[in-house]
Amino acid sequence: MEWQELDDLKRRMRDFAERRDWDRFHAPKNLAMALAGEAGELLEHFQWLNEQQSAELDAATLAKVGSEIADIQIYLVRLADKLGVSIADAVENKIVVNERKYPVEKVYGSARKYTEYGPSE
Amino acid sequence: MEWQELDDLKRRMRDFAERRDWDRFHAPKNLAMALAGEAGELLEHFQWLNEQQSAELDAATLAKVGSEIADIQIYLVRLADKLGVSIADAVENKIVVNERKYPVEKVYGSARKYTEYGPSE
Amino acid sequence: MEWQELDDLKRRMRDFAERRDWDRFHAPKNLAMALAGEAGELLEHFQWLNEQQSAELDAATLAKVGSEIADIQIYLVRLADKLGVSIADAVENKIVVNERKYPVEKVYGSARKYTEYGPSE
Amino acid sequence: MEWQELDDLKRRMRDFAERRDWDRFHAPKNLAMALAGEAGELLEHFQWLNEQQSAELDAATLAKVGSEIADIQIYLVRLADKLGVSIADAVENKIVVNERKYPVEKVYGSARKYTEYGPSE
Repeated sequence: MEWQELDDLKRRMRDFAERRDWDRFHAPKNLAMALAGEAGELLEHFQWLNEQQSAELDAATLAKVGSEIADIQIYLVRLADKLGVSIADAVENKIVVNERKYPVEKVYGSARKYTEYGPSE
Repeated sequence: MEWQELDDLKRRMRDFAERRDWDRFHAPKNLAMALAGEAGELLEHFQWLNEQQSAELDAATLAKVGSEIADIQIYLVRLADKLGVSIADAVENKIVVNERKYPVEKVYGSARKYTEYGPSE
Repeated sequence: MEWQELDDLKRRMRDFAERRDWDRFHAPKNLAMALAGEAGELLEHFQWLNEQQSAELDAATLAKVGSEIADIQIYLVRLADKLGVSIADAVENKIVVNERKYPVEKVYGSARKYTEYGPSE
Repeated sequence: MEWQELDDLKRRMRDFAERRDWDRFHAPKNLAMALAGEAGELLEHFQWLNEQQSAELDAATLAKVGSEIADIQIYLVRLADKLGVSIADAVENKIVVNERKYPVEKVYGSARKYTEYGPSE
């Protein structure tokens, strides 16, 4: 099962691609590249800002960042659709894994522990 | 306004970070990096496959790819939350932009046109 | 013309791939993905560190980061080889472009200007 | 020790940054982001091409790809310089590791084996 709203978005994006005969470009390999390309564009908005500045974007930059976020969401939904992956299920599984992997009492309050045990490792 | 289910996910992830005192690591700059790191991991599953093979993953690879998709969705929601961005609004705006930018009659049925006018350009 | 040492590396990597019958996987598309995947791994070492910490890596992390740097250099050389691109020439061209684009008197001493005029924009 | 030509490039880039007072933006964290951003731009040129097409770029695209390759080489050299990493040593170490990890007799001629044992895994 998929979250209703992401499911709607999947169908809208499927329709968008089909009406343009673009579906044939949407191999999962290509969609993964497109998503990573957008993630690269996202980085460019933040790379010379410090952490504080990255939380206080001016309106123009925020609009551009929002646009990159939308691109990533759209490609993610499209990729999941082409692979038959439910984002809702994948996220629920991941939350269970993360709850087990990073128990509060083990990781609370330590930067060291976060970098060691952090989500991406 | 935000899609209900992404809004729920935002709150769950906020709670997950706060209970671990990890919120202070979640500067938008850092979350953008974490998201791009996960996009890099996603690529690694596809890089030596051709397009056809990328659409026919075996179950083990599909499970790993699903897990990267979940990571990306989670960081995307977290980033949007920290920036005060509504993913729903950003996606709706982007769809309007894309409908205007790639009218069906202009781009239909041409690989050339897709690579020239494609979403990431 | 290519810098001698990158040229040597190109030939060693070509030989490495050919002896394993891996050359056929090394389409530029695939090498670009592999390079971006390694760039994603590089990010993961830095994402939860602040800028100061990122300049003071412990020996174990530094060794891992060095290993990612090597992977990126190898894929970059391999990609340039497959495309017939001279890295030396491309870099010299880029330096000329950057000298013109960012004249010292225009960009000196302003973070604002750097983020506006910075190399990646 | 560093390869002479990359060492020259390190010094030129150091000088380029210092004359613009940009050195302070070049924390390793930021340079890793900038490099990954350029890797994302590299992807965008290839994402909708098949592998064959990616090896036969037209002159205009090839020039753009060459420019991304230059950006990546420049940021890589800059990052290595800020971290005190020798690219030459890191690459030599990596080649030794890869020779051991992927012995010709074990990996020759099998796509399956390549994807299993490939460089990025």
